[in-house]
Amino acid sequence: MSTLHPRATSADADLLSADGPSADQAPPRIVIQYPRPSVDGGRYPVKRCVGDVVEVSADVFRDGHDLVRAVIRWFAPDGRAGEAELEWIDVHLGGVRWAGAFAVDQPGRWRYTIEAWTDVFGTWRDELARKVAAGQSELAGELSEGAVLLRRAARHVRSPEARAVIEDAHAELADASGSASAKCVTALNEALRAAIEREPQRHAAVSLDEPLIVEVDRRRARFGAWYEMFPRSWGGLRGVQAQLPRLAELGFDVVYLPPIHPIGVTHRKGRDNAPTAAPGDPGSPWAIGDASGGHDAVHPDLGTLHDVRALTEAARAHDIDIALDFAINASADHPWLTEHPEWFHRRPDGTLKYAENPPKRYQDIYNVNWDTPDWRGLWDALLQVMLQWVDCGVRVFRVDNPHTKPFGFWAWLIDEVHRRDGDVLFLAEAFTRRSVMRHLAKLGFSQSYTYFTWKNGRWELIEYLTELADTEEAEYFRPNFFANTPDILHEYLQRGGRPAFEARLVLAATLSPTYGLYSGFENYENVPVHDGSEEYLHSEKYEIKRRSLDGPMLPMIATLNHVRRESPSLQALSNITFLDTGNDGLIAYAKQTGADTTICVVCLDPHQPQSGWVNVPASLGLAPAFTVHDVLSGERYQWRIGQNFVALAPYWRQAHVLKVAPG
Amino acid sequence: MSTLHPRATSADADLLSADGPSADQAPPRIVIQYPRPSVDGGRYPVKRCVGDVVEVSADVFRDGHDLVRAVIRWFAPDGRAGEAELEWIDVHLGGVRWAGAFAVDQPGRWRYTIEAWTDVFGTWRDELARKVAAGQSELAGELSEGAVLLRRAARHVRSPEARAVIEDAHAELADASGSASAKCVTALNEALRAAIEREPQRHAAVSLDEPLIVEVDRRRARFGAWYEMFPRSWGGLRGVQAQLPRLAELGFDVVYLPPIHPIGVTHRKGRDNAPTAAPGDPGSPWAIGDASGGHDAVHPDLGTLHDVRALTEAARAHDIDIALDFAINASADHPWLTEHPEWFHRRPDGTLKYAENPPKRYQDIYNVNWDTPDWRGLWDALLQVMLQWVDCGVRVFRVDNPHTKPFGFWAWLIDEVHRRDGDVLFLAEAFTRRSVMRHLAKLGFSQSYTYFTWKNGRWELIEYLTELADTEEAEYFRPNFFANTPDILHEYLQRGGRPAFEARLVLAATLSPTYGLYSGFENYENVPVHDGSEEYLHSEKYEIKRRSLDGPMLPMIATLNHVRRESPSLQALSNITFLDTGNDGLIAYAKQTGADTTICVVCLDPHQPQSGWVNVPASLGLAPAFTVHDVLSGERYQWRIGQNFVALAPYWRQAHVLKVAPG
Repeated sequence: MSTLHPRATSADADLLSADGPSADQAPPRIVIQYPRPSVDGGRYPVKRCVGDVVEVSADVFRDGHDLVRAVIRWFAPDGRAGEAELEWIDVHLGGVRWAGAFAVDQPGRWRYTIEAWTDVFGTWRDELARKVAAGQSELAGELSEGAVLLRRAARHVRSPEARAVIEDAHAELADASGSASAKCVTALNEALRAAIEREPQRHAAVSLDEPLIVEVDRRRARFGAWYEMFPRSWGGLRGVQAQLPRLAELGFDVVYLPPIHPIGVTHRKGRDNAPTAAPGDPGSPWAIGDASGGHDAVHPDLGTLHDVRALTEAARAHDIDIALDFAINASADHPWLTEHPEWFHRRPDGTLKYAENPPKRYQDIYNVNWDTPDWRGLWDALLQVMLQWVDCGVRVFRVDNPHTKPFGFWAWLIDEVHRRDGDVLFLAEAFTRRSVMRHLAKLGFSQSYTYFTWKNGRWELIEYLTELADTEEAEYFRPNFFANTPDILHEYLQRGGRPAFEARLVLAATLSPTYGLYSGFENYENVPVHDGSEEYLHSEKYEIKRRSLDGPMLPMIATLNHVRRESPSLQALSNITFLDTGNDGLIAYAKQTGADTTICVVCLDPHQPQSGWVNVPASLGLAPAFTVHDVLSGERYQWRIGQNFVALAPYWRQAHVLKVAPG
Repeated sequence: MSTLHPRATSADADLLSADGPSADQAPPRIVIQYPRPSVDGGRYPVKRCVGDVVEVSADVFRDGHDLVRAVIRWFAPDGRAGEAELEWIDVHLGGVRWAGAFAVDQPGRWRYTIEAWTDVFGTWRDELARKVAAGQSELAGELSEGAVLLRRAARHVRSPEARAVIEDAHAELADASGSASAKCVTALNEALRAAIEREPQRHAAVSLDEPLIVEVDRRRARFGAWYEMFPRSWGGLRGVQAQLPRLAELGFDVVYLPPIHPIGVTHRKGRDNAPTAAPGDPGSPWAIGDASGGHDAVHPDLGTLHDVRALTEAARAHDIDIALDFAINASADHPWLTEHPEWFHRRPDGTLKYAENPPKRYQDIYNVNWDTPDWRGLWDALLQVMLQWVDCGVRVFRVDNPHTKPFGFWAWLIDEVHRRDGDVLFLAEAFTRRSVMRHLAKLGFSQSYTYFTWKNGRWELIEYLTELADTEEAEYFRPNFFANTPDILHEYLQRGGRPAFEARLVLAATLSPTYGLYSGFENYENVPVHDGSEEYLHSEKYEIKRRSLDGPMLPMIATLNHVRRESPSLQALSNITFLDTGNDGLIAYAKQTGADTTICVVCLDPHQPQSGWVNVPASLGLAPAFTVHDVLSGERYQWRIGQNFVALAPYWRQAHVLKVAPG
């Protein structure tokens, strides 16, 4: 990439005609269309991570037969700019596709555009070459044209060496006494071409109407293992801090804490979501605020602001992020209800409207009124809350139900936070219609919860992953595959027991670069509050547990987390190829990044053994026969292009995670 | 459709909050995206014909659970405007898709946008209904809110009847002494809903950033049968005129004439493209211009301007269009070369650059220099040429090689002509890369030549028709399926003889609403200039033929043209369903428009009989058993949903064109 010399796209008007400059420029001849990567035709940013190479392509063409040339022009957040070549690729997409790439080496908002121009000298040279090859000899006109082009090129170049080469060629072509055939040899000389190519003239260059935006995040935006823990079940913030060495050892990258703020007492929910709390019931952490404080306060039982700062600092030493919950709702005791009654929805009869989705009522929570005339005050207060936690070292927020808040608010909030700290990541907890989830991601959320929890069959997993990995969604929607949450205990886990937990763990950890577990998963916790419910019995949302990191799944989790870190192929999403198994009870897929290949085979049946033939297609580019190493069992197998027999069985071996040995 | 009351989309700000108007408006809550029909996200117009119903759809959603409403707002070329309802459709596309339609009843540039708003009363009513249904009784707050909404609604409506209903309801809800249950009955009353629905309030309405454009043409832009004839082979323009009654009887809609202008003498091409003309050789009509005139003149052997006018008038009486060729090149003798030397490319040594694609040279033709400083003069002269012919009654132009001229010129020219006469149609003769052909269509060409001539196998026909009919291309690219042209005699016709001609005729006439034949097709003319060439031996491009309308295929052509006119299903493109035949030698497809169904089965093998089972899927909605009438043979068959045996054979019966009898 060379340093960019900014240039107006209409600068070369004087080259348009042999008759000299034209003040009155005709419309451009070149069309640039369908640039990729892009989201909704450029309306929203594309997402990438630091260190990525952005593969760019676009249609570039003009009328007639003249040669065109094209480059990517990129602009970094720090003001640097540069160019990268675009090359014409195959005719498969209609014969007008060009491709190139540039690297993004810092976080922030990058921009790129495409510039294309007519290669006047190249076109002339190419036509002359074809005439010479065809033995045509009446070339005086062509050579006189060449002399004019070379005179201009000599005026254009800055390099003295290149100018000397071009001037010599010009002198020969302009010499009326010279021989035509000798002139042709000079004109087609490779050294002349190289001299002109050093600083090619951009004849009537055109660019995209608007540059495209690439939002570049730190790599954790795409790749990480999350662990969710209620600090009150671990001895508060200091208790969480005490677990950090073990969490690091297990390979977790993000520790996510549900709200750590004071909890309301009015209409507090009791155990198992009882409408009335019994004495001593702690209430739901999402019913935020009491007389002691609201979103900017720490629940006194959990610790202090100082403890938050100490926790984030300790976590950073392990390269772990502490993620806080950002839930915009208030208990009846939240200070804002009295300090800012205008931020809440009061009915004409004076009553306050609590959260509801009729006929359901959430009497312990009040939503803010986004239509308040003081919406700017409300927005700013929420920004200040978030900035306080950023100031305490929090760099990740899990945002509660963003789809019930205005889209414009999120776009603004994320932008405001990123102006102060580009490292802050936002995970959208929106379980709603696809379009709404996608829209939140387009507006700036770094990651999103997904439908993964409800995709347990082979066909629906393949369908869903294909959507996430192979459509435009892959440009902006980064999935976070939580295998469970405090709200979602899927029937598959309830009925499948340990084999189901193993299958879901392997799927989450290997399908998606980012995945998560809510504590208890490692203990196979799977009793619902009642049959048909996805709520846990004795849900931690309403009571305090005694938690410790000693569940039987932890060794498997640690193994997976470590192989993920060592495997570039497990750090990307769109590098997946599903493999035929001939058995819907077995799902198999290969992930490939560079020379790193991982093949996973998971038995989706938690009850019965399943066997089948996993078909490795030649298109993966592996050796005809190759060795694979199962990181879960330590065993090695000889595999091949084509059919490979696999037998898996619950309580014996639920999955293979196979690293392909370098060939 | 109601008459549109223009309304600013931010007009209803005072409804945003119960606390009154907010001067400082928060960003809109509703998202409208992916409107269809559209081309490249709205960058280029969609094409439709007069009388079409434009089926519109879009994603419409907002945050939270409030109900949204949406309409299409359309604007006709004559200034009329109106609205059409959009309704929420199934969840299949993500749960946010809305659909509606509006009719276009005049040619010109229509616009439409989508407006959506939050249905405040509907949301309130819906929540109240759910609470009442759940037996909740503490509804005083809700009812006080309803009273406010009804007071506003009463202020908003203009209809006295509706206002009375609303005011009565308001009085009841606002009465502090009334019973809550009676108030609920009133609030949920259907008459009240209907009164409010008469003029619903549009709370915080939003629209698309830009309206979308629908270019509406007369119906011949989509549907017509073309016949191409060199007037010099038919006794000049008067000879063509004499054929009009017979052409009308045969069912042709457009008679296309290659250039009718004087032909250059310098470097005139001889028979079979010989580099030198023999005495008496007429030259190629595309080598335009001699001392007597250029693009605005008529070749003296063909007639006069007066004859052109007489021809177009006579044609109009038969509802036939005369299409002229628009070829922008000049013979060495064209007056422009002396009158406007600056419009041509002169080399620095003074030589004029003739048309070439090295090493090929076209010494009888000079291209204009689009890069001339006087490009405006050149563009304007070309516009004047076209307007002269429009003035002579010409309403269709077949444009020669538009892909070698600037895109901007065509966009401008078509627009300028349409400002004067919206009925003028433009057929692009561009055989080049898909993207370039598509781009010309996006810029305004009404119709386009296609790759049809080179698609002779079953799979490639299906692939190509699927591209034309089922992708966004269908919104702007109207194919004209010429079965042959003076430049293209495909090997399939050369080797296949009469059966091949029959197959290609039926395919052209039934696959595409617009198709064409170049004269000689009806005589099975198929001798190439040499083996491996697509040029005719004794090509009419370089010599005069004696033509008459008596070829053996004419009865079949007339039959097809008439069934096309009687069959709405043969007047559309995107209504095609390919049917399985289990035999690559047989292609079968159904076309359906409303109650009209045509099923075609064509034997693609011109040498051997082919038989197979044509599978009629139940999804076509036909009766379990139905009668079909073969318009080619007059025979009737009993067909059914499922498999239907078909046997076709060269020289006996090459195709079925089956009209399904009304069930």
